Amino acid sequence: MGNCMCIRDLCDRPKNTNVRWRLPAVCFIWQLSMIILFGVFVRYNEEADTHWVHYKNKNNITSDIENDFYFRYPSFQDVHVMIFVGFGFLMTFLKRYSFGAVGFNFLIAAFGIQWALLMQGWFNSLDYSDGKIKIGIENLINADFCVAGCLIAYGAVLGKVSPVQLLVMTLFGITLYAVEEYIILNILHAKDAGGSMVIHTFGAYYGLSISWVLYRPNLNKSKHLNGSVYHSDVFAMIGTLFLWMFWPSFNSAIADHGDGQHRAAINTYLSLASSVLTTVAISSLFQKTGKLDMVHIQNSTLAGGVAVGTAAEFMLSPYGALIVGFICGIISTIGYIHLTPFLEEKLKIQDTCGIHNLHAMPGVIGGIVGAVTAAAATTTVYGDLGLANTFDFTGSFAKRAPNIQGAYQAAGLCVALCFGIGGGIFVGLVLKLPIWGDPADENCFDDVIYWEVPEDEESVPPILVYNNHMIPNKNSDRRETHFVEQS
Amino acid sequence: MGNCMCIRDLCDRPKNTNVRWRLPAVCFIWQLSMIILFGVFVRYNEEADTHWVHYKNKNNITSDIENDFYFRYPSFQDVHVMIFVGFGFLMTFLKRYSFGAVGFNFLIAAFGIQWALLMQGWFNSLDYSDGKIKIGIENLINADFCVAGCLIAYGAVLGKVSPVQLLVMTLFGITLYAVEEYIILNILHAKDAGGSMVIHTFGAYYGLSISWVLYRPNLNKSKHLNGSVYHSDVFAMIGTLFLWMFWPSFNSAIADHGDGQHRAAINTYLSLASSVLTTVAISSLFQKTGKLDMVHIQNSTLAGGVAVGTAAEFMLSPYGALIVGFICGIISTIGYIHLTPFLEEKLKIQDTCGIHNLHAMPGVIGGIVGAVTAAAATTTVYGDLGLANTFDFTGSFAKRAPNIQGAYQAAGLCVALCFGIGGGIFVGLVLKLPIWGDPADENCFDDVIYWEVPEDEESVPPILVYNNHMIPNKNSDRRETHFVEQS
Amino acid sequence: MGNCMCIRDLCDRPKNTNVRWRLPAVCFIWQLSMIILFGVFVRYNEEADTHWVHYKNKNNITSDIENDFYFRYPSFQDVHVMIFVGFGFLMTFLKRYSFGAVGFNFLIAAFGIQWALLMQGWFNSLDYSDGKIKIGIENLINADFCVAGCLIAYGAVLGKVSPVQLLVMTLFGITLYAVEEYIILNILHAKDAGGSMVIHTFGAYYGLSISWVLYRPNLNKSKHLNGSVYHSDVFAMIGTLFLWMFWPSFNSAIADHGDGQHRAAINTYLSLASSVLTTVAISSLFQKTGKLDMVHIQNSTLAGGVAVGTAAEFMLSPYGALIVGFICGIISTIGYIHLTPFLEEKLKIQDTCGIHNLHAMPGVIGGIVGAVTAAAATTTVYGDLGLANTFDFTGSFAKRAPNIQGAYQAAGLCVALCFGIGGGIFVGLVLKLPIWGDPADENCFDDVIYWEVPEDEESVPPILVYNNHMIPNKNSDRRETHFVEQS
Repeated sequence: MGNCMCIRDLCDRPKNTNVRWRLPAVCFIWQLSMIILFGVFVRYNEEADTHWVHYKNKNNITSDIENDFYFRYPSFQDVHVMIFVGFGFLMTFLKRYSFGAVGFNFLIAAFGIQWALLMQGWFNSLDYSDGKIKIGIENLINADFCVAGCLIAYGAVLGKVSPVQLLVMTLFGITLYAVEEYIILNILHAKDAGGSMVIHTFGAYYGLSISWVLYRPNLNKSKHLNGSVYHSDVFAMIGTLFLWMFWPSFNSAIADHGDGQHRAAINTYLSLASSVLTTVAISSLFQKTGKLDMVHIQNSTLAGGVAVGTAAEFMLSPYGALIVGFICGIISTIGYIHLTPFLEEKLKIQDTCGIHNLHAMPGVIGGIVGAVTAAAATTTVYGDLGLANTFDFTGSFAKRAPNIQGAYQAAGLCVALCFGIGGGIFVGLVLKLPIWGDPADENCFDDVIYWEVPEDEESVPPILVYNNHMIPNKNSDRRETHFVEQS
Repeated sequence: MGNCMCIRDLCDRPKNTNVRWRLPAVCFIWQLSMIILFGVFVRYNEEADTHWVHYKNKNNITSDIENDFYFRYPSFQDVHVMIFVGFGFLMTFLKRYSFGAVGFNFLIAAFGIQWALLMQGWFNSLDYSDGKIKIGIENLINADFCVAGCLIAYGAVLGKVSPVQLLVMTLFGITLYAVEEYIILNILHAKDAGGSMVIHTFGAYYGLSISWVLYRPNLNKSKHLNGSVYHSDVFAMIGTLFLWMFWPSFNSAIADHGDGQHRAAINTYLSLASSVLTTVAISSLFQKTGKLDMVHIQNSTLAGGVAVGTAAEFMLSPYGALIVGFICGIISTIGYIHLTPFLEEKLKIQDTCGIHNLHAMPGVIGGIVGAVTAAAATTTVYGDLGLANTFDFTGSFAKRAPNIQGAYQAAGLCVALCFGIGGGIFVGLVLKLPIWGDPADENCFDDVIYWEVPEDEESVPPILVYNNHMIPNKNSDRRETHFVEQS
Repeated sequence: MGNCMCIRDLCDRPKNTNVRWRLPAVCFIWQLSMIILFGVFVRYNEEADTHWVHYKNKNNITSDIENDFYFRYPSFQDVHVMIFVGFGFLMTFLKRYSFGAVGFNFLIAAFGIQWALLMQGWFNSLDYSDGKIKIGIENLINADFCVAGCLIAYGAVLGKVSPVQLLVMTLFGITLYAVEEYIILNILHAKDAGGSMVIHTFGAYYGLSISWVLYRPNLNKSKHLNGSVYHSDVFAMIGTLFLWMFWPSFNSAIADHGDGQHRAAINTYLSLASSVLTTVAISSLFQKTGKLDMVHIQNSTLAGGVAVGTAAEFMLSPYGALIVGFICGIISTIGYIHLTPFLEEKLKIQDTCGIHNLHAMPGVIGGIVGAVTAAAATTTVYGDLGLANTFDFTGSFAKRAPNIQGAYQAAGLCVALCFGIGGGIFVGLVLKLPIWGDPADENCFDDVIYWEVPEDEESVPPILVYNNHMIPNKNSDRRETHFVEQS
């Protein structure tokens, strides 16, 4: 603590990455806005308010355990771990961008959940009697979900943007998310418990489009930092595993009480298990000597969780879940091997974490699986009550038939795609403005631009040798300095 | 990502560790078999099926919160973390086998849970009316438990086998587990909520027997890699702590609703706390200057959780739990100091993680504690209903007396031992076939055999120096190459 | 495993840090005492005892899900993770004290929870009918809370004390905690669900006072080790994030069933989110080029959770929670920048982890917020029943008015402060006795004193170079030895 100094002096760059005024200003203004808006709009819902005791009596609820808190809090905490540790550590694989990965992930998510509570609240939880948004545990889960979309997008631009850009990207991302979610879930009445469409498809295409607009033709200047070291790969596995383990909670968190949550957890558990085996198979098959690649293990093993998101609460059947995981493990791994280079070279989309393989393709597959499964639903399989319960065929949707539902599911997927691509292009153009403090091409993937990085005393000589090779002019000075110190 | 190359070329070894066809083939075939078998056999049970709403009405269940999901899902997720992060990271202590530790653990577990759902399903969850296995949350927990046995066994052979061998070992291990579990729990009607016998004793002797059959007389050729570095020891503590913290969930996950789960969690919590203090005491006592050894802290602190597994749901009493932890912390730590070298030199059992000290001995002690505690149970302590509830003295076992139960508990322990040793010897012989791609003695404990390992640019020179000492012929070339690069 | 040797020989120090007899003796004696005291005093409560089935029938409880276990176990496990992984890993930021951070944290906590069960049990859970302490899940949570106070205190003396001192500090700390907690919660009838006063204020001033008594004027001799390296900062983020994510569980774990737990979780979630943004803002603002400092991100982001502890279960309102987090993020970060150096230079308080900024100031603020919020409570906002429920205005406190409650809350804060400072000075004097094996000034923050540290083969040359610079006489020998080995 304290005894830190930045290793490389970067003031002589043409790009101004000094965010000393911009970053604090954005953080302060946005946090103050949140306080004001929360003051005007946000209150506890009846299950979190001290009036719960009155509410219970009025509604003949016999026990506090019927409070939604006890149905959803364990799942909420698992989702929370996925957002902060899962996404955060998954991105620490880069050798010198772990602070940025886990730290900016933290910043984005902490801001995003507040803005999401408001945006989603206005659309879904507004109490028209008093004009207030009433929040409870389900709103917290939805806010975490909403942020997940932006964190997915962060994966595409990891290492290439400034924290100010990330905050702007999150502000717009959450806003777009809330609108597309409202259209898909409320207007189209599509179901998407695990968010294959709403979260993954939207988030991935949002990020990919931004990355496309922000294309850096000379990114190979920082190529030496765009890779992992041994320990950074192990750190990334922390992220992978927490995402993998808690994905059943993700897909079941806001599913129906009872069998809905139960079934969603089982389907996701199975789909993920299946993905692991096909990921390993493809990873080994495509290397000369059958070795496994950590990039695939860290990412493609999760594809099954993404793809089963929409259909997790349907009667997909255990073997159906296995098939979804089987296919997505294959497609995602092949994506890392063949598609990522293609996207970069031909389509000019630089996708640092390969979100196209982990979220975009499996998300679209998930949307299709959801549409097909919904269209094929029958009362024989679901039961009368079960069918109505599962698809919420109540109120104005009471007469909707499963095949119509399938069509609306497909329409939902298109909406997610349009919002992702369209929104991403727009926000990409905003982020191209030369005012956000983004790094120069040669400084991408490097924590020293935005973080006080401790001088790594124990490994000083290796760093010097390495620097010597990469930036010879500077290193000669540095090495001398050190020799002087040492002698 | 991508910018990887393997550091040492190994094609000139007599052993063929190229698993390019074997590993994908095994993964594909087994995953396809799972899909087919799940298609034929596996369905949701009544609590995870959309017919839950009918079931509820029929059985006068007033609230969805009565769904078993809400009793067990939080514990399930804790167990899930123990299996994937706990076991996975505990084994990352080796300096250059972290990918294998956490990655192969992932692979084994993901395959094992699927096969376990089938094997355990045929024995325990088969609905004879339609010939289907009906799964719910408790099956997922049991599948995770089943895999734990195989992961324990992996600890004994860590670094010395190929992923194909591990998958074969898991296939047989799960099968044996399901049979011994059925004999112990159903036929003998022994109780083993936390699996001291069924999981730990079986798993440990299974692994030790395999290791005995696969004995490598020249393993000291890779001795330099059979140890930790500073950061790998910290990674391993992640595994230790998640195992330690969530062990109360492990032992209580499938215990009886209500007081059963409650008591199992308390007993485990106490036993584990006690283990920590005696582990520290013994570790310090046996070093010249009283220093602590990370190996002991990482492993022996967990012995109390293993040993209290069987008796956790009994009226062991809080002080009884403390005594169990007290004894096992001592025995396990002394095991690491004196028994592990003895086993290796005299009995030719090479036990990489020391599972004999962490699982075998505490598991047997746990079985004995369970037998004694069961035999000593009285209606005074348990109450009439309580005694019958705790030991499930219902149906054909309604008239069993506690002392008879004690004898059956002891018999259960013997069954676990026999299956572990017998099964391990058989599977060890299978794994000796020269077709599985296992590494040469000098390549044990080294990730580069089965993984694309990133060139660790920052620490290139140290590795060279170290290699220089170990494999001089190669290094001279390498060093030159590097000097050329650097100049 | 095994292949370890200590890097630096330290026998020639005037201080005797050999704890070979003292540490084992203390561990054994204390663990034996625990067993005896538990044997005499501790039993299961009616919800964890096999008599639960009788209890249920007698009290017309219709379902096992009404067992307190299901209300609190998920929160308990989250708290458990905070204690062992959260606190443990947060302190791994030092470059060469990760074993001590996570290992001694483990030791302290494992001992502390046992002693806390007894101390808190005597005060709160004693069944006067048979003189036994009856424990259940809530006692486990409270024991974890109690230990949190001591772990906070450990943060101030991290790296400067021996494990024996830590055990003594914990023995006294838990004792003092139980007394102050009883005075604050039972006698004054103050509310403090999340422990801003009882845990954080007490723990922080306890640690700071001890650190003040143990002041080391020549601590700069080990200044080179009092800082982080790149990977140790990433490890510390594991601690930060698990604390941050699970803090809603911490503040809601022992709150009232139903709306109490629900509201406490929401308030904490919001306060923490707000802290992150202001921490980032201040951290960036106070650095020359706007770079972020990991010390702030690791610590000050948590200040909102500390400060909302007391008021979390009150009707603080969502925007109230955001304001609390907003203010504390600012104060805590400025504390790290300006107050920590001031405390060290002027007040002679060496605070390794900066607990003054993370726990002391936010804890006091939390106490004040709680007092003000309680004093301002009205039946309009809370409802008749709600007000009585929230503040437990029952029995002899049935007629207490909110403004009186506010005064008692403030009195509670003073009690916590007095116990912390007074107790800390007393215990500091005890720890000054020259019998505990504490390290010399030049060996502070160094794991090699109390741990077998693996020789870090891969980075041997860098360490030598570094040592060469620091302790030249020794290194010449070492380097030669190595060269001999290598040639």
